[in-house]
Amino acid sequence: MTALDALAAHIREAIPLTRHLQFALLAHRPGELLLGAPLAPNINDKGTFFAGSQAALLTLGGWALTTLEGEACVERVDVVAAESSLHYVAPLYAEARVQVHATPDDLAAFARRLQRRGRARLAVTAELLGPADDVAARFSAYYLARDLSASHESVD
Amino acid sequence: MTALDALAAHIREAIPLTRHLQFALLAHRPGELLLGAPLAPNINDKGTFFAGSQAALLTLGGWALTTLEGEACVERVDVVAAESSLHYVAPLYAEARVQVHATPDDLAAFARRLQRRGRARLAVTAELLGPADDVAARFSAYYLARDLSASHESVD
Repeated sequence: MTALDALAAHIREAIPLTRHLQFALLAHRPGELLLGAPLAPNINDKGTFFAGSQAALLTLGGWALTTLEGEACVERVDVVAAESSLHYVAPLYAEARVQVHATPDDLAAFARRLQRRGRARLAVTAELLGPADDVAARFSAYYLARDLSASHESVD
Repeated sequence: MTALDALAAHIREAIPLTRHLQFALLAHRPGELLLGAPLAPNINDKGTFFAGSQAALLTLGGWALTTLEGEACVERVDVVAAESSLHYVAPLYAEARVQVHATPDDLAAFARRLQRRGRARLAVTAELLGPADDVAARFSAYYLARDLSASHESVD
């Protein structure tokens, strides 16, 4: 089982609402995570992708990328969402793909700080896309990671 | 059946994800809507209220208040989310209550514009609260409403 499959299984097991999003973690490389989710379980009264499902999926995507990046530099990490903003660009009448990003500079600072201080913040951005790469929503957020595997002198 | 019960039934019927939030619309008066949701279906890996569930519940709450306010001034209204921002203040280890607000001035301008132009934007704010009125998250958003029951000369 890959790290991505293991994380998806953990999410579905520990966070019941995510099962109903029917999300998939599709691909990960440093600073980038791709997720997908079908329309049917996330449809709204207008036949488009429910704004609340978009918000949940984007929030989950940023959390998953921060977790994967944290696990790449410390053994056990705990991640929580701190802030987010979301701009709904256009209605989506199909399944969604979510592309989550963190910049190389932000990732390097995040890894350094998490290893030294035991806590670090990561800024992520994401787009929720339709089948023709049409942007349905833009998202930006901060997540806080904490190293659970070691003690650190200062946590600030 | 009250307008609030009818709206809750419509939401659950038309937006499948909302059934899994197990939300309730508890009370409405002009400019204020109160929602609730239990912890169990919205729990995360840390035993707290999942950030994605919070985001979905807050997004739904703002949509529901805008819909109720729109229905108070035109016969048939269609509401979509436009923008939102969310600040996670503290973890929540219990069921959530969500208080959604719009100011009297904003509501009056919204009603006037919706009736005259057939389209209007409403700014809402919301807090997600724990059992002791402890704030777990603060939310602000804009929603766009469209009057489906009449034709209007200008929509801008």
